[in-house]
Amino acid sequence: MLESTVAAIGPLDEAAMVAARDLQGRLTKPAGSLGALEPLSVRLAGLAGSCPPPLPEPAAVAIFAGDHGVHAQGVTPWPQEVTAQMIGNFLAGGAVVNAFARQAAASVTVVDVGVATPLPMDPAAVAGPAGPRLVAANVRPGTRDMTVGAALTRDEARAAVETGIRVAGGLIDGGAGILLTGDMGIGNTTPAAALIAVFAAVDPAAATGRGTGVDDETYRRKVDVVRGALDRHAPDPADPLGVLAAVGGLEHAALAGLILGAAARRVPVLLDGVIAVSAALAAAAFAPDAVGAMVAGHRSAEPGATAALRHLGLDPLIDLGLRLGEGTGALLALPVVTGAVRVLHEVATFDSAGVAEK
Amino acid sequence: MLESTVAAIGPLDEAAMVAARDLQGRLTKPAGSLGALEPLSVRLAGLAGSCPPPLPEPAAVAIFAGDHGVHAQGVTPWPQEVTAQMIGNFLAGGAVVNAFARQAAASVTVVDVGVATPLPMDPAAVAGPAGPRLVAANVRPGTRDMTVGAALTRDEARAAVETGIRVAGGLIDGGAGILLTGDMGIGNTTPAAALIAVFAAVDPAAATGRGTGVDDETYRRKVDVVRGALDRHAPDPADPLGVLAAVGGLEHAALAGLILGAAARRVPVLLDGVIAVSAALAAAAFAPDAVGAMVAGHRSAEPGATAALRHLGLDPLIDLGLRLGEGTGALLALPVVTGAVRVLHEVATFDSAGVAEK
Repeated sequence: MLESTVAAIGPLDEAAMVAARDLQGRLTKPAGSLGALEPLSVRLAGLAGSCPPPLPEPAAVAIFAGDHGVHAQGVTPWPQEVTAQMIGNFLAGGAVVNAFARQAAASVTVVDVGVATPLPMDPAAVAGPAGPRLVAANVRPGTRDMTVGAALTRDEARAAVETGIRVAGGLIDGGAGILLTGDMGIGNTTPAAALIAVFAAVDPAAATGRGTGVDDETYRRKVDVVRGALDRHAPDPADPLGVLAAVGGLEHAALAGLILGAAARRVPVLLDGVIAVSAALAAAAFAPDAVGAMVAGHRSAEPGATAALRHLGLDPLIDLGLRLGEGTGALLALPVVTGAVRVLHEVATFDSAGVAEK
Repeated sequence: MLESTVAAIGPLDEAAMVAARDLQGRLTKPAGSLGALEPLSVRLAGLAGSCPPPLPEPAAVAIFAGDHGVHAQGVTPWPQEVTAQMIGNFLAGGAVVNAFARQAAASVTVVDVGVATPLPMDPAAVAGPAGPRLVAANVRPGTRDMTVGAALTRDEARAAVETGIRVAGGLIDGGAGILLTGDMGIGNTTPAAALIAVFAAVDPAAATGRGTGVDDETYRRKVDVVRGALDRHAPDPADPLGVLAAVGGLEHAALAGLILGAAARRVPVLLDGVIAVSAALAAAAFAPDAVGAMVAGHRSAEPGATAALRHLGLDPLIDLGLRLGEGTGALLALPVVTGAVRVLHEVATFDSAGVAEK
């Protein structure tokens, strides 16, 4: 399934992009006055193969949750149980991602792709028909410690990637016009830093940040952990499944799959923060044309996010110092994406409105 | 009315801000992980005097339209008639501001505070009960040429400011929870540059930009026009009505009034681009505490906007190279403001959600 998905990902449609550029030039506004929204609308036309492209709605957030063996190395002050507890919070609608999703009329799907501790509640008891939904797809109860051995076997990494592809297909079959990446996993900025160091070819110190807010000593330990894991495994960026297995996380692998699944269906995928962009690097290593489906929602405060976005050639829509994850940055950016497309649908031309040109 | 409005503007409520900071620290997210949204939510609590502050909805965009005698100096390639034609486009729902307002469920009110040419249609014929509304409040048919004399008399400037105050009051009485600034006026980046040069004390060259996209020769002429007008009038920044009369525009003066009117009612006002921030400088000169009610929606591509925001001490929420005006940048930023407040209303605390802290 991974191979057939990668094979289905193709380049943007040039004719649709020409049509969108031409339309932008006839709308009642000075040429270029919508800044970054204009090229974004053109690219989404190229992705859809039509001008205007469909409005990116309804939106669906997929939150992939997993735990991390590297937690044992003391890379975060938060207990591992918080991953499962936050799933309970997502399903009860109490997290920031829920508040932002309600505001944006986006659905929330939580995917347990590798949580290590028991979930705090019976999901059937909490998820109403319109509320957040839980997908049970646990590949294994957390990764292994990447400083001791590979985090995952290749088969486990593939299973997680294919879970992401399946989730993308299910959401698109259910009508979603845009997918938003979300994540939850205590310790997951450490594998994200390792993935970014490998794929974007930057030093572990440049790829590693303070995550949820670690102190200086923990930060230094975190950089050492990433450097040590890369030295041990020497992952080959041309073998993305191997990289994900060696130093990745189950949610990172699943997010790479979600992105590939969206790109194969030519549906845009709005990236959240550092976990998302580290997964996007893996997706781009599988299929370079997948970048055409990616929209960078925001610039995470994590330094690795900026290195990853630069490598992908993506400019983020929002830059407000967020570092929460869950999909919150992507949700804040969603109205910008929708607005960019809406202009092509709804704005009058100089001709039709009887407005003089300069 | 101007004096009583200014007198009603007071400082932020410290107790409400303390309560909001405390609440932010107990919500299920790492402290500070919502970046700029956290201090914004705190400030809006201080403005409302309650924690949480009310959700900023419904939103109302007020587009003030005016023409400019300085158009005769060749500061823009667009014909003056476009101001009136674009009012027709706004009332018909065909402009970018209409598309963004529909998306954000914001009402649109167009105020003719000084259009020079006849409006292209009978407004009563186009404005349905839920559609854009036209307010006829023409102080005079465009300003005088500021390079020849004062753009306005003090009484005319006051009438425009008080029109803005009245519009703010009417929208808030109608239930608006947040006001968004909009503007339309061919040539109006020239008086905006002059206002910014005076109030932010920067050189005309640093305050002047290319507006809708003028060529090098027009740009040089525009800087010379601004410099010449300031040399001629030597406006005193401590006398904001005098500055608005000498080198302002009717829409700039009315926007200053809208901002003062919102601040006096302790309702947030979301600023659009360079016209809005030039008017915000005037509002702050009338009443320094009015800055507490201002939220900078976006960073316009116009260099003067950045100078003005720095002077006001405001960081914009969106920075995507927009330079359209109309209120479009404010509308794109609105979901960020709403999201920042929504967090205080809807997100669970560590205690209530049973999530462990670090």
